[in-house]
Amino acid sequence: MSNASELPITGKAGCVTNPGPDFGVEVRDDIPVPKPGNMEVLVKLTVTGICYSDLHYMLEDLPMAKMSDAGVVSPGHEGVGHIVALGDNIPASLELNVGDRVGLKPVWSSCNSCEMCTTDREMYCPASKQTGLHVPGTYQQYVIGSADHVLKIPEGLSDAVAAPVMCSGGTIYRGIKESGLKSGDWVAFAGAGGGVGHMGVMYAKAMGMRVIAIDGGNDKGEMCKRIGAEHFVDFTKTGDVNAEVFRLTDGLGAHGLIITATSAAAYRTGIGMLRTSGVLMAIGLPSVADIPSIVDPISLIGKNLKVTGTAVGTRNDVKMALQFAATGQVKPVIEMFPFGRISDAVMKLKDGKVAGRCVVKFDD
Amino acid sequence: MSNASELPITGKAGCVTNPGPDFGVEVRDDIPVPKPGNMEVLVKLTVTGICYSDLHYMLEDLPMAKMSDAGVVSPGHEGVGHIVALGDNIPASLELNVGDRVGLKPVWSSCNSCEMCTTDREMYCPASKQTGLHVPGTYQQYVIGSADHVLKIPEGLSDAVAAPVMCSGGTIYRGIKESGLKSGDWVAFAGAGGGVGHMGVMYAKAMGMRVIAIDGGNDKGEMCKRIGAEHFVDFTKTGDVNAEVFRLTDGLGAHGLIITATSAAAYRTGIGMLRTSGVLMAIGLPSVADIPSIVDPISLIGKNLKVTGTAVGTRNDVKMALQFAATGQVKPVIEMFPFGRISDAVMKLKDGKVAGRCVVKFDD
Amino acid sequence: MSNASELPITGKAGCVTNPGPDFGVEVRDDIPVPKPGNMEVLVKLTVTGICYSDLHYMLEDLPMAKMSDAGVVSPGHEGVGHIVALGDNIPASLELNVGDRVGLKPVWSSCNSCEMCTTDREMYCPASKQTGLHVPGTYQQYVIGSADHVLKIPEGLSDAVAAPVMCSGGTIYRGIKESGLKSGDWVAFAGAGGGVGHMGVMYAKAMGMRVIAIDGGNDKGEMCKRIGAEHFVDFTKTGDVNAEVFRLTDGLGAHGLIITATSAAAYRTGIGMLRTSGVLMAIGLPSVADIPSIVDPISLIGKNLKVTGTAVGTRNDVKMALQFAATGQVKPVIEMFPFGRISDAVMKLKDGKVAGRCVVKFDD
Amino acid sequence: MSNASELPITGKAGCVTNPGPDFGVEVRDDIPVPKPGNMEVLVKLTVTGICYSDLHYMLEDLPMAKMSDAGVVSPGHEGVGHIVALGDNIPASLELNVGDRVGLKPVWSSCNSCEMCTTDREMYCPASKQTGLHVPGTYQQYVIGSADHVLKIPEGLSDAVAAPVMCSGGTIYRGIKESGLKSGDWVAFAGAGGGVGHMGVMYAKAMGMRVIAIDGGNDKGEMCKRIGAEHFVDFTKTGDVNAEVFRLTDGLGAHGLIITATSAAAYRTGIGMLRTSGVLMAIGLPSVADIPSIVDPISLIGKNLKVTGTAVGTRNDVKMALQFAATGQVKPVIEMFPFGRISDAVMKLKDGKVAGRCVVKFDD
Repeated sequence: MSNASELPITGKAGCVTNPGPDFGVEVRDDIPVPKPGNMEVLVKLTVTGICYSDLHYMLEDLPMAKMSDAGVVSPGHEGVGHIVALGDNIPASLELNVGDRVGLKPVWSSCNSCEMCTTDREMYCPASKQTGLHVPGTYQQYVIGSADHVLKIPEGLSDAVAAPVMCSGGTIYRGIKESGLKSGDWVAFAGAGGGVGHMGVMYAKAMGMRVIAIDGGNDKGEMCKRIGAEHFVDFTKTGDVNAEVFRLTDGLGAHGLIITATSAAAYRTGIGMLRTSGVLMAIGLPSVADIPSIVDPISLIGKNLKVTGTAVGTRNDVKMALQFAATGQVKPVIEMFPFGRISDAVMKLKDGKVAGRCVVKFDD
Repeated sequence: MSNASELPITGKAGCVTNPGPDFGVEVRDDIPVPKPGNMEVLVKLTVTGICYSDLHYMLEDLPMAKMSDAGVVSPGHEGVGHIVALGDNIPASLELNVGDRVGLKPVWSSCNSCEMCTTDREMYCPASKQTGLHVPGTYQQYVIGSADHVLKIPEGLSDAVAAPVMCSGGTIYRGIKESGLKSGDWVAFAGAGGGVGHMGVMYAKAMGMRVIAIDGGNDKGEMCKRIGAEHFVDFTKTGDVNAEVFRLTDGLGAHGLIITATSAAAYRTGIGMLRTSGVLMAIGLPSVADIPSIVDPISLIGKNLKVTGTAVGTRNDVKMALQFAATGQVKPVIEMFPFGRISDAVMKLKDGKVAGRCVVKFDD
Repeated sequence: MSNASELPITGKAGCVTNPGPDFGVEVRDDIPVPKPGNMEVLVKLTVTGICYSDLHYMLEDLPMAKMSDAGVVSPGHEGVGHIVALGDNIPASLELNVGDRVGLKPVWSSCNSCEMCTTDREMYCPASKQTGLHVPGTYQQYVIGSADHVLKIPEGLSDAVAAPVMCSGGTIYRGIKESGLKSGDWVAFAGAGGGVGHMGVMYAKAMGMRVIAIDGGNDKGEMCKRIGAEHFVDFTKTGDVNAEVFRLTDGLGAHGLIITATSAAAYRTGIGMLRTSGVLMAIGLPSVADIPSIVDPISLIGKNLKVTGTAVGTRNDVKMALQFAATGQVKPVIEMFPFGRISDAVMKLKDGKVAGRCVVKFDD
Repeated sequence: MSNASELPITGKAGCVTNPGPDFGVEVRDDIPVPKPGNMEVLVKLTVTGICYSDLHYMLEDLPMAKMSDAGVVSPGHEGVGHIVALGDNIPASLELNVGDRVGLKPVWSSCNSCEMCTTDREMYCPASKQTGLHVPGTYQQYVIGSADHVLKIPEGLSDAVAAPVMCSGGTIYRGIKESGLKSGDWVAFAGAGGGVGHMGVMYAKAMGMRVIAIDGGNDKGEMCKRIGAEHFVDFTKTGDVNAEVFRLTDGLGAHGLIITATSAAAYRTGIGMLRTSGVLMAIGLPSVADIPSIVDPISLIGKNLKVTGTAVGTRNDVKMALQFAATGQVKPVIEMFPFGRISDAVMKLKDGKVAGRCVVKFDD
């Protein structure tokens, strides 16, 4: 390990308290600065984004591993900062140095040699670890990254804008890529005004697709139109959303529906807005209390529909998502919070009041 | 029209009586021999296969058009015979002549110029007609075919073997093709002992896949092993079919599950036998009274699963399905019935007692 | 046939004289107005684009069929106008009426039922006919179209802008689609300033690709930058074009090179600008006197390169190309000529002096 | 490192002498047994296959790195044996233990995190090392393997049969996979009687393709027919090979041509045997003295041909290639040599006299 001598003993972190429905986020400044091990780097973050998955982990409302299983108290998996120390055995081919500006993303590490890792599906590697779930996350100022999974941030992209790309951007880029939708196709986003959804609108637009944004409220509507949606359908005002989508697409239906919403409602009816051979891509996770079923075989057979889902992005996905942001093709909408107000940022997201993405700045 | 002078006035047909749950099939010999119109040919069939879709049409248990809407009384969509008369305007490029041995398949005609027709999805052409549903079917000895949809039968393939390839073969070939499964992959067939399923076993085997046949009963089990299944799972004797599939696949699960069964049960649990990125292909239509839901978003996202469905094969699919049969790579298992016993064949299928495919021979 | 009574006896046409290296184009106004036959429509054109393929046909410099083999004297395969008469047997599903604004494209007709036609490759149908080669082309004011191949022009797109989309737009859209290149990829166009090339720049840009335009001269350079190229490489000023492409792409090379130029030089060296797994797409036809070879096996194996080519677009391609223009994502650069100056337009193209596309207007 | 105490000090190896056109292979028994380092294993081989690439390396006839650049004297990249010692830091997820039967393959190591490594193209990783070129190869009895690249050999597959699968099998499986050819397609192999080619015949057959084997001589012809070729075309007796392929494929041509031959002749004319949209896959490396050009743009455009190439297989490819062998779908034809005759095996291959694959057995 190099450079550790210059580092402080402790750093800041937003830490979960009382995990479950009534969880809280506490600001602390006494978190020990960790030392990077074999193939690891230590990153001092300037910013972290706030993602709905963080809430799932703190709410403990999904049927999966808990943060507490690994003793993790700081969630967060989209952070940007600089490398301040290097661990051992980092290959030269990674070209990592102290001072490099890098980002952390949801997949913290993976085995690198299984079928999943070698076919661009490392988020499904059985040995992979998730940032902020299996290891401390980006709500923590000094955080360890795996040398082969931290990614360099392209020049010209600010830390605050890059942060949400690390998760939201990579995730939605992955979802669009996996959907098989093509430039010129009509794609609808359910939950278009949210952190992942609004990036979906921008990425799809940048890829030449025609976007129908679906969400509720004028604020989200105005944002969606501004960032590239050809149409906005306000589900709070539209009696039959599916019928409206058909009307907007010459009576044929959308080629694809990407659900970034975390409510079950979108899943219950969404498939009905697709044209023949259309695809439904599931990205937003409804809570376990309310698992909707999506489709029956008669619809699948009668219209050759495809239903699939995907989790977060791989290194390749996030690199490409960063490129789209660096070239200005995509400009995430962010709302900044000082570190002291990290709890407010989390609760605003919990209340469904965020248009775009909250980003928290570690003040020094 | 040529050659009509040599034709009889009437011919045989199996005709539905009392459509609905208690339908019957009546043998008649007074059906007028039709005249081929523009772009049509008249075919004298030697054989027709009996498909479960025929039963759906006669049972009227699916939420779709009825035979009676078009005045059709003879279902059937897999028939082989010879052209006995040609209508007008048949292009030379089709190379059709009186005497040619041809087959009819489920898609009777399509518009040929829409997006569906021009991208190998003619079964979804909005203007397409289905044989034995919108126009008289292959339970009728003298039947009209659309010149651009009848297909020549390769040499060396008997009429009786070719008939079920026209529907079952083409359908399952399509399903396998659409599934994206590759040689070497593990594919499970639910309903493997049936008319479509047993051909699935053979086609998948011929394409180099490793087949797990799932069905009930020793007869079906023996047949499945004989025709190429690496394993047979008898759902009547196996407590947890999904667990058994995992056991047979080194604990990883199947790459694909193709459901050719028409029961809802297979759909309810089948997705649980898939590995990461696995695909469920719906082919068998459960009756409308019992529409199962297949999957929830957490499973889709957590395992990157794909759920899709497809209807019958296109011309390209059926041509390829015929090629596999002509080269001997696939040998459909058939049980022959004389025309006078067509009702017995239909009822045996209705009772779920057919291993392979029933084929009825028009005796002269 | 309907409405023929209102039609004139003769119309205008640009007709080739002295086919071969020294051909000319003669303006005539005594061309009999043809009558549409079975499945045909008569179209009165307002405009025709001028394509380099027209020159190949008149120069007779390609090893293929000649116009004169079919008695054709008017080339041209990108024309827009209105239907003025309908032939017989036009299916209702085509929804064609007198007065409809439609365009003609390079593929005049195809058999509609072969493997090529049913898999979106109708330009390779053995029975297909090419507009302006096997049948009279769009240099002729009153021209016959095949009912299943004329395409409706979307509202809001002018005739003059739509015309070049019918060939150039559809061709380059096809080329990009076939290349497998994705949004975010680096694509180079050799011949980027030409009629097909400049549309390639725009379509690729609209599809989210990063474009390197390669051509010669400041005029073409300025146009390319204006319509979306991220970089312009002037081959007349750049010593080593391939090295420059590597420099512009972080030392990795382009993901794809699409050659729309008709000179052999681009083919001789272009493959050297590709990165691992890159693709070279051949579109521009060099004359027969000078057939370059493209690649050796050591390069293919050592870099996993792909080399392919494609001809004009299918109906699906041209429809999508029109959609991109109708939504304003693509705006072809055109230079208008009155009909009387059609020869000037042709000769300007022959001299390589056209930036964008020449379009000729039939004045009444 | 564990278990090293039981190991001898020296072992056997076949070592190149006088690299270049007149190279020799010398048998030695004084090669120091190496110690496995970080992430490495020591393997005691029982067998090694002899591949034409070994000859290229010893002949030094390709424009690439030389063995001598890395001080390597033993080529070879298809070997099978048992792990006899483990180095440090081997992750548990690899499940490697002393005693495990494993194989080495052409890609010895790769960086595991670049775009190539994470998209199943690790053979193109810029940091990858090739066995027997950059590090000592499998002509050496005790050889070091990279822990993440040695592969376990499935039960029921003998060492001698598994060895050639590690290179020839994986390479040709990769080539077939990359070609995009499908079950039912016609595929021709140029060089079908050779080490890689004869496996191509078997893999393609196992994947349901129809195989045309092209090579010279009765011995190779008989072997090709025996292992699954539907037709054999003897280029020494057939005036026009391309015409013969058209004749065998109903006048349409092959869907694909895979060139495993290392002679330039196959490359010069092979593309002429393809049908529309056909693919030529380059695998065999002709020597640098004689680089053929493959195709001109008029052919590419006029027939929508695809020309590509690929090097050896990835871990995924070799695993699947081993599976095909373990299930008995593929049975490599091997000729065994004792270790003392390794030079004879190499020279027999150099003389083009091997039908199938030579495998050398380390006698103890």
